[in-house]
Amino acid sequence: MVRLPDVQALVPDTAYKLNRVGVSGVRKLVRVRRPGLDEDIVLTVTFDISVDLPPTMKGSHMSRNVEAVSEILERATATPVEGLENLTLQIAKETLRRHEYATEAEVKASADYFLERKTPFGTLSTEWFTLIAEARATSKGEARKLVGIEATGMSACPCAMETAKSLRGDHAPGPGLTHNQRNRGMLIVEVPEPVHVEADRLVDIIERAQSAPTFELLKRRSEGELVLLAHDHPRFVEDVVRGILHGILEAYPDLPDEAIIYARSISEESIHKHDAYAVRETTVGELRRAPA
Amino acid sequence: MVRLPDVQALVPDTAYKLNRVGVSGVRKLVRVRRPGLDEDIVLTVTFDISVDLPPTMKGSHMSRNVEAVSEILERATATPVEGLENLTLQIAKETLRRHEYATEAEVKASADYFLERKTPFGTLSTEWFTLIAEARATSKGEARKLVGIEATGMSACPCAMETAKSLRGDHAPGPGLTHNQRNRGMLIVEVPEPVHVEADRLVDIIERAQSAPTFELLKRRSEGELVLLAHDHPRFVEDVVRGILHGILEAYPDLPDEAIIYARSISEESIHKHDAYAVRETTVGELRRAPA
Amino acid sequence: MVRLPDVQALVPDTAYKLNRVGVSGVRKLVRVRRPGLDEDIVLTVTFDISVDLPPTMKGSHMSRNVEAVSEILERATATPVEGLENLTLQIAKETLRRHEYATEAEVKASADYFLERKTPFGTLSTEWFTLIAEARATSKGEARKLVGIEATGMSACPCAMETAKSLRGDHAPGPGLTHNQRNRGMLIVEVPEPVHVEADRLVDIIERAQSAPTFELLKRRSEGELVLLAHDHPRFVEDVVRGILHGILEAYPDLPDEAIIYARSISEESIHKHDAYAVRETTVGELRRAPA
Amino acid sequence: MVRLPDVQALVPDTAYKLNRVGVSGVRKLVRVRRPGLDEDIVLTVTFDISVDLPPTMKGSHMSRNVEAVSEILERATATPVEGLENLTLQIAKETLRRHEYATEAEVKASADYFLERKTPFGTLSTEWFTLIAEARATSKGEARKLVGIEATGMSACPCAMETAKSLRGDHAPGPGLTHNQRNRGMLIVEVPEPVHVEADRLVDIIERAQSAPTFELLKRRSEGELVLLAHDHPRFVEDVVRGILHGILEAYPDLPDEAIIYARSISEESIHKHDAYAVRETTVGELRRAPA
Repeated sequence: MVRLPDVQALVPDTAYKLNRVGVSGVRKLVRVRRPGLDEDIVLTVTFDISVDLPPTMKGSHMSRNVEAVSEILERATATPVEGLENLTLQIAKETLRRHEYATEAEVKASADYFLERKTPFGTLSTEWFTLIAEARATSKGEARKLVGIEATGMSACPCAMETAKSLRGDHAPGPGLTHNQRNRGMLIVEVPEPVHVEADRLVDIIERAQSAPTFELLKRRSEGELVLLAHDHPRFVEDVVRGILHGILEAYPDLPDEAIIYARSISEESIHKHDAYAVRETTVGELRRAPA
Repeated sequence: MVRLPDVQALVPDTAYKLNRVGVSGVRKLVRVRRPGLDEDIVLTVTFDISVDLPPTMKGSHMSRNVEAVSEILERATATPVEGLENLTLQIAKETLRRHEYATEAEVKASADYFLERKTPFGTLSTEWFTLIAEARATSKGEARKLVGIEATGMSACPCAMETAKSLRGDHAPGPGLTHNQRNRGMLIVEVPEPVHVEADRLVDIIERAQSAPTFELLKRRSEGELVLLAHDHPRFVEDVVRGILHGILEAYPDLPDEAIIYARSISEESIHKHDAYAVRETTVGELRRAPA
Repeated sequence: MVRLPDVQALVPDTAYKLNRVGVSGVRKLVRVRRPGLDEDIVLTVTFDISVDLPPTMKGSHMSRNVEAVSEILERATATPVEGLENLTLQIAKETLRRHEYATEAEVKASADYFLERKTPFGTLSTEWFTLIAEARATSKGEARKLVGIEATGMSACPCAMETAKSLRGDHAPGPGLTHNQRNRGMLIVEVPEPVHVEADRLVDIIERAQSAPTFELLKRRSEGELVLLAHDHPRFVEDVVRGILHGILEAYPDLPDEAIIYARSISEESIHKHDAYAVRETTVGELRRAPA
Repeated sequence: MVRLPDVQALVPDTAYKLNRVGVSGVRKLVRVRRPGLDEDIVLTVTFDISVDLPPTMKGSHMSRNVEAVSEILERATATPVEGLENLTLQIAKETLRRHEYATEAEVKASADYFLERKTPFGTLSTEWFTLIAEARATSKGEARKLVGIEATGMSACPCAMETAKSLRGDHAPGPGLTHNQRNRGMLIVEVPEPVHVEADRLVDIIERAQSAPTFELLKRRSEGELVLLAHDHPRFVEDVVRGILHGILEAYPDLPDEAIIYARSISEESIHKHDAYAVRETTVGELRRAPA
């Protein structure tokens, strides 16, 4: 049999370590279990999977990253995993195991995600979100996993509302005309064992922080009611981020102080051609110490 | 000297004609002249350039498409062309000339485009649009060219406005709360010689058809005034398209009946996760015959 | 009870008919049945759904488009539909039924699609494709449906291969060095009753027309074998389109002459910053009459 | 005169500081000077501009970010700035000055960028790149600026080349068949005063690290020669990153140890549906200390 050369294991011409070497845009059909649901959820997940590379190696054996995903997904077909974040951590560990020269492995995953939501008008509606998961495993035994959601809701501007009321000579309390638009709220949170975070509650937290959620199907009356709801809760992009931060602290008091939190809000401004955005990256502990 | 084989001129295994064969995503820096402007305009244009291919040819010599662009742009460096639509027609003709086996050539071009606009508040603002041009030349001497604009403005929903007023028990005339959002209005029109259409007037036509234009810089007062302006002109996506059609007929009475018109409006609905859109493709003649 | 106004039914200011009015980017989880498969397939489908609008109507009731999708999908939950193309036709018919003023309805759908493929190396691999479906229903009883696939394979340039061999003084038959790259092949075909087209066979047809298929997991040897395979089958973008046309005619002799065919091939050229592409839009009958 | 309320200056409901609050996707036409060039360069730049926000402020006055860009660009119209990186730093400083409550301002900018390049075949060709600039100013007087390039070249896989040669029984030295594809190489480097980095030299560094550059116009012979060039320099994504790191150290010995370097390479794999990538983020000092 022909012996094939291992070009990756050669010593490179110039010896620099690399932070991340891997594959991106790997699409896979994934079956996960959510606690409390009868049926498994089927997701079309896009993965990025990388390891670090020491200066002594010319290349990383990238097929091993794809093998790691495949192996973990195959195991999960027999026994579905609870939550995409646990799956990504398993993939990170398996990827690290297969690259004996690496000291860490990182996995990022995202998928379209559908949830049945109750509208403020009493009906049920299946709505679309983005489910996010990230994991990191190191040769020192570190194992981190994060879960997140991006939800497209609505933001109505509190500043333009006050100005427009002033310009119209309207000094009564209550809502007034303003610009409103799609707001994409994102919350990603680290979930150290044994904390479990439900993606559905992340959706709740984000939607409550926005002026209003959005729905795919609105009849005339519910469309009007949603407009009123949004105008009763005018929010800057900044307000959405702070609302998300406040919501996660309240909903998950058992999150440890070291847990990482990333919150972002993007308003696709209806009065401008550009977007407005706000971001906070921090730990649960730092948030808890924030001035009330 | 080595004689290189002309693989494209070989007879293909299976003999089918092809409608369009070419290159897409060719980016070029282009200098055009607009009448009435002192300075030439510099545009970063993305081109698609294709010809048809007879069943007797294995391949099209695609480097000739890129050569045609380069040649025309080089000539234009010495003597700037008036308008991107004229440039695309020149490229189409030159491309056709270089493919002796083709019966037609098509060129599509688009570019970020900046115009100084007067705001409703009396100030000047440089705003971003997309400039579009298309051309087609045939071996029978047909030569068509089209010019277009896409403009991001605002649409405020007239239906939700009436519903929200009803729900609040507000029966006075005048504007009320509603959802509003980015509306992308597009107008592309054929400009047979000697008709000349100014891109700036296309912007006017689109912006007047929308609820309001958008601006990059709005101070507190002008932001409020823009909100009032949009609510004074609630528009469905359908209204925007009809307004565009009406506007182009009024502004250019000298357009011949055969001239092609394409009008489109997309509202990035703030109350939904999906978009709403409306399209009309027709000729000037058909529009003129429409019931008033 | 408050009576809400029907703003859409008002007469518009300017009376022009519109070709297409609807919603785009509606994402839904869809369950379809493929003949011969034990399990239903779960797809994340993105829909565009539109109707025409007469000049006498200000707006189209767009919530009815979303209702039509929801209703058909709900029915399909109880009794899964065979094929996305049949589902889109059902949605088109239901949408038309709900818009009494419209004369036609159009539905476009696309979804990530996973198939277990046999590699040339004897292993099995789950590969990603894009599944496409389109349908059109008219008030005159016309009912068209199309099904299609986009598949990312490989193209190796036959022209550069001959040139590079010449430049190296290599005049032996057989493969030589050339540029190769991702080629996205697309085939969409009308499927009038009772013709049934399997998406899996469309994948076969496209992949055979390309220089080689691509695979997510390749170990060292199979990577080398795939490289050899591609170089044994050098293909222009034009060759890929002709191969697709030839393949569909051979595979489905029962397709009627009126059936529409759309074939496209895009090579993301590794030696250029732009893409090369080729397109053929025609009917089965015209292809059959083509010179052999 | 009506006094308009300053809603942004209100105390928020929940008091959390925010890391970044600002605008993204602001498009502007920018005129910059490059040393040694007769003519100014006109760029269509997309800006992101943000500041941090203390817990005591409800909102950031975002119109000030747009004002800062406009003001700096207006000044630059009279006296063109040398380099986009200097312009972004001026915008960062001006943005910080206008937000008295902020402690830092960040600006990111990117633009299509065209350079006349000499091909290996002796001809000249205007090629497209992406120009990148970033800047950060703090209330403590910190002022950082970075400049970067992304260049689309070619990578030919060294591993598949060896395997394919083995499989064909070819044991001679020299190039062999392999998969090749578009490789996007990126290099961003901090340029502390008085170091000046020419974008054109960054292009050189990246293109030399890739298997070959790409060109928009290649005639038959030069296409063949480019294929040979690429196969004479097979490169992993990892090799491209290391080559970039090596190149920047060699080309700019005056860069201080603290200067930040970011190098990335993405290969759009022709044999897979996913991409391969490699990244190194570090400082010049750390690279210099790397094992040779």
